[in-house]
Amino acid sequence: MANDLLIRNVRPMGGATVDVLVRDGRIAALGQGLSAPGVPVEEGGGAILAPGLVEAHTHLDKTLLGMGWHPNSAGPRLIDKITNERRLKKELNIDSARQSARQVVLSSSHGSTHILSHVDVDTDVGLSGMRGVLETAARYADVLTLQTVAFPQSGLLIRPGTLELLTEAMAMGADFVGGLDPCAIDRDPKGHVDAVFALAERFGKPVDIHLHEPSTMGAFSMELILDRTRALGMKGKVTVSHAFCLGDPDPALVEPLIEQLVELDVAIMTTGPASRPAPPIARLRKAGVRVCSGNDGIRDTWGPYGNADMLERAMFLGLRNNFRRDEEVEIAFEVCTSGGAAVVGIEGYGLEVGCVADLVLLTGETITDAVVSRHKRPLVVKRGKVVARDGACLVEAP
Amino acid sequence: MANDLLIRNVRPMGGATVDVLVRDGRIAALGQGLSAPGVPVEEGGGAILAPGLVEAHTHLDKTLLGMGWHPNSAGPRLIDKITNERRLKKELNIDSARQSARQVVLSSSHGSTHILSHVDVDTDVGLSGMRGVLETAARYADVLTLQTVAFPQSGLLIRPGTLELLTEAMAMGADFVGGLDPCAIDRDPKGHVDAVFALAERFGKPVDIHLHEPSTMGAFSMELILDRTRALGMKGKVTVSHAFCLGDPDPALVEPLIEQLVELDVAIMTTGPASRPAPPIARLRKAGVRVCSGNDGIRDTWGPYGNADMLERAMFLGLRNNFRRDEEVEIAFEVCTSGGAAVVGIEGYGLEVGCVADLVLLTGETITDAVVSRHKRPLVVKRGKVVARDGACLVEAP
Repeated sequence: MANDLLIRNVRPMGGATVDVLVRDGRIAALGQGLSAPGVPVEEGGGAILAPGLVEAHTHLDKTLLGMGWHPNSAGPRLIDKITNERRLKKELNIDSARQSARQVVLSSSHGSTHILSHVDVDTDVGLSGMRGVLETAARYADVLTLQTVAFPQSGLLIRPGTLELLTEAMAMGADFVGGLDPCAIDRDPKGHVDAVFALAERFGKPVDIHLHEPSTMGAFSMELILDRTRALGMKGKVTVSHAFCLGDPDPALVEPLIEQLVELDVAIMTTGPASRPAPPIARLRKAGVRVCSGNDGIRDTWGPYGNADMLERAMFLGLRNNFRRDEEVEIAFEVCTSGGAAVVGIEGYGLEVGCVADLVLLTGETITDAVVSRHKRPLVVKRGKVVARDGACLVEAP
Repeated sequence: MANDLLIRNVRPMGGATVDVLVRDGRIAALGQGLSAPGVPVEEGGGAILAPGLVEAHTHLDKTLLGMGWHPNSAGPRLIDKITNERRLKKELNIDSARQSARQVVLSSSHGSTHILSHVDVDTDVGLSGMRGVLETAARYADVLTLQTVAFPQSGLLIRPGTLELLTEAMAMGADFVGGLDPCAIDRDPKGHVDAVFALAERFGKPVDIHLHEPSTMGAFSMELILDRTRALGMKGKVTVSHAFCLGDPDPALVEPLIEQLVELDVAIMTTGPASRPAPPIARLRKAGVRVCSGNDGIRDTWGPYGNADMLERAMFLGLRNNFRRDEEVEIAFEVCTSGGAAVVGIEGYGLEVGCVADLVLLTGETITDAVVSRHKRPLVVKRGKVVARDGACLVEAP
């Protein structure tokens, strides 16, 4: 079978050394001295075995990877960056199929086996971003699994025609309905949130809303989101991305929101932003909130940073949350693995027998060592098939 | 001559391609098609040429690099980490000569040509840290230049005997007098600052004080430091490291401090901490304050992070300060190069003819590209001698 594999001498999550037998793309056995005649063998050399990294928030359609250096020149406000991006998308002729493929290959090289990508839908690019990313999803289906969020980056109600396009994007197969700053960008919070949730109800899909709004404005928008989650019975089907308002220093503002996140099983995505108020990961997880992370935009018109490495992202989460103890850094790693899987909904994720063999080997004595050292990944496996080795994806990028 | 070198096809700070001729450890000429019979030639391949990175704040004496993984278990407060560290120093038997040498080699591999290291002086370790680091400074003098700060990590007045040891450390040749949180740790701000400045006056050396104290407490301590800088005529001879109080959101607290920093030419060291209030780099530089940076402790009992790469540190500064435009990221890079040189006082630093040939080649189209990509450094040169190549130091670590 193409998806059979025996990986020798690996340490699941840094524990005792075992062999892992994969049959038909799933973990069939874990134990010492396994043998499976005829099955391809990989030597793990004592590396840590982890389930594949989960990139739960990025923008595959608009990275500039491999397009030469474009100086970043956008102004300081969010709306400056949105306007600048729409202009540059035309000037640079960003091919969303090619660009998303480049980032997919880079992500795979670092050990991500699943990506949830927001994809811009607006009256300028129309559905071309969706078409390009869906093309990449199909073409690289053996390398990693790719889900999409239909994302009204330039505003929803404020740009007539966008809602119709977003509806078409959902019909094309987008996995989540996206949204963006109901107050600050769309200037009609009730209208925005109503429109987003109406689409979600119509297509029976979950919601993932970008919420950069800080402090009381963000808390207000989050309450509108929570109200509709409750009213429509969408418990467990909503994610709020960024959620800077949860980083507010006032517990009187934050704690009631956390209570409702728990009640409605609303998930939080945080990148661990160094220059913004950030959701307190340990507090959220202790309360029982599902938390995931992502690299957000990689090398795009919003900024030059990023390499699509979710192990580096775990480090950023650790630094932002002042995680210094090993068990704290392990929380950051969990957010980038099982946390992401729980938020985006990956079936059969994990290291138990029966789980899908989406695996990454990590070099390090412990998980924390792996996060802070970030060596090249020795091996990445998708559904039992080796897709990357020694930090390089076996499939070439366009 | 051992310190002659011709580097072909490099782009100073990302500009037009030139050759660089080094004679007797200094830049002798920059131009196209230079020739120098008998002089060793390095092919730059179009890499960016920059002056060596400057690590202006670290703790060479206590890194655990290469000592196997030690789980981080210290409690949340600063004093927990100080106490935990004193205990572990005994248990782990940290050899400051060996450990500082390991970090020096790692720093060099990433392109640092100069380090300013704080070195613990306390009633437990005595002067053993100083002896070890000074041994490394002498042994690796051809690899990079190393300055020291005699640093009362465990408190100065609160631990009787420390002041005498600090005096001995200065007599041994420490380059700076250190200090630490006059209110929060020593509990006697006037006494602490008086003692530190008295030592500086006695030995004619500059001061570099750790100031983690936030908000009004930190502002108060900083005022005490500024008062003594003024009274003792130490303009240009004082650095405040960390200076979290300058990251306070209240301009009424911060702006008067900045005015005095400018008046007294007091420098600021910031690591760009993701989880703490951080000095606003662009604001400080615009006002005319000298700003430098450092990696602080690398892989030690305070926390597991760090790889001694000042190019990565430039990225952290950029992320913390929300630098997205190219000219902003270039500021972060300057802080890690010429900014550091201006603070620690490196003679002949730069890329002009006559400057000392402390050089690093960077892979990237632009400085910003180099910072965000952080490829292995193709070449590192100290006083005209190649000391690292392709990300590896030519001298082995112990």
